[in-house]
Amino acid sequence: MDRSGLLIILSSPSGAGKSTLARRLMEWDPALRFSVSVTTRAPRPGEVDGQHYWFRSADEFRTMVEADQMLEHAEVFGNFYGTPRPPVEEAIHAGRDTLFDVDWQGGQQIRTSGLGQSVVSIFVLPPSLTELERRLISRGQDAPEVIAGRMQKSRDEISHWAEYDYVIVNEDIDKSTEDLKTILTAERLRRQRQTGLGQFVRNLMEEEVAK
Amino acid sequence: MDRSGLLIILSSPSGAGKSTLARRLMEWDPALRFSVSVTTRAPRPGEVDGQHYWFRSADEFRTMVEADQMLEHAEVFGNFYGTPRPPVEEAIHAGRDTLFDVDWQGGQQIRTSGLGQSVVSIFVLPPSLTELERRLISRGQDAPEVIAGRMQKSRDEISHWAEYDYVIVNEDIDKSTEDLKTILTAERLRRQRQTGLGQFVRNLMEEEVAK
Repeated sequence: MDRSGLLIILSSPSGAGKSTLARRLMEWDPALRFSVSVTTRAPRPGEVDGQHYWFRSADEFRTMVEADQMLEHAEVFGNFYGTPRPPVEEAIHAGRDTLFDVDWQGGQQIRTSGLGQSVVSIFVLPPSLTELERRLISRGQDAPEVIAGRMQKSRDEISHWAEYDYVIVNEDIDKSTEDLKTILTAERLRRQRQTGLGQFVRNLMEEEVAK
Repeated sequence: MDRSGLLIILSSPSGAGKSTLARRLMEWDPALRFSVSVTTRAPRPGEVDGQHYWFRSADEFRTMVEADQMLEHAEVFGNFYGTPRPPVEEAIHAGRDTLFDVDWQGGQQIRTSGLGQSVVSIFVLPPSLTELERRLISRGQDAPEVIAGRMQKSRDEISHWAEYDYVIVNEDIDKSTEDLKTILTAERLRRQRQTGLGQFVRNLMEEEVAK
């Protein structure tokens, strides 16, 4: 059955397990397309252009926004982040799902971009903030004042939980992975996603049977 | 996590596998409550009052409708069918899901009854009408003219497929059963079903962490 592609918005405070969940979803469904964002921030060690982000200058970024080539964009900690629009529209029509790792602002913009009918939004909550802070510290990537900033950003992020279609409390990463797969499998069965149904029913009704 | 109960509307033309699917869902989740309809038609051989239907007189039925005790009701082939409202409302508040085996008219009435937010509606399509007719004939329960009537009713029923949240083409009963379980598991993760989330997030925000 032909279907339209989903725009899967996965949001959470950093440290709640979102990256692991995204990676596992990609392993589960290799056809899933990860939306690579454009950013003006400098690459971190190990980050690859076109894989983790498209690293672009502020001027290049501005040009894309002005040409309406950005589905959503935002400034975070003085850097710009955005999602290129054309590959997303192509994926919807081709019946290929796209996974977005965006914050609540990105989620809001994608929902209101005119492509909102294709959106499935999922918010991942940590079981506790203390646990979230512990994970950020044990990651060892950030200085204490950066962690404090991230925790404040986490609270801001969590405050938007009620804008999402689904909420997962990530107490167990395996269980949360299963929940995510279940949500996507069900969403693909939604009537409005199955674009081949209209023709299927027309064919059904034209069969010759007892009247 | 506390949640509200779902009203699961399962509709299909007769012979498309709906009864088997309903039975399998009940086996999968013994907490699922099957909504027993009230009817004025005579019991068929083997049908038990309170299990397959509540068999009531036309007068008793009318009294329930007038007392606004019916969530939905309809006349089919000269008999009345209806769903008692109070047990459904109790189940929603208790976080217990209710399964409805109703036609499109029943589905429409339940959706617009004021309890529509709790509804998850699923339409089961047969792979073909020829196959549907073959199943009705092989069941051996009905005379040819009754089967012709049922086939006409099937067409009417199928014409309402686009009013449902989900559509399953029942080519394989095992696959369709899995699809149904997936839909219900996902729907329980919807934010508005998880009535305990508001309190959970308030508790989360009150934890003492770095600011």
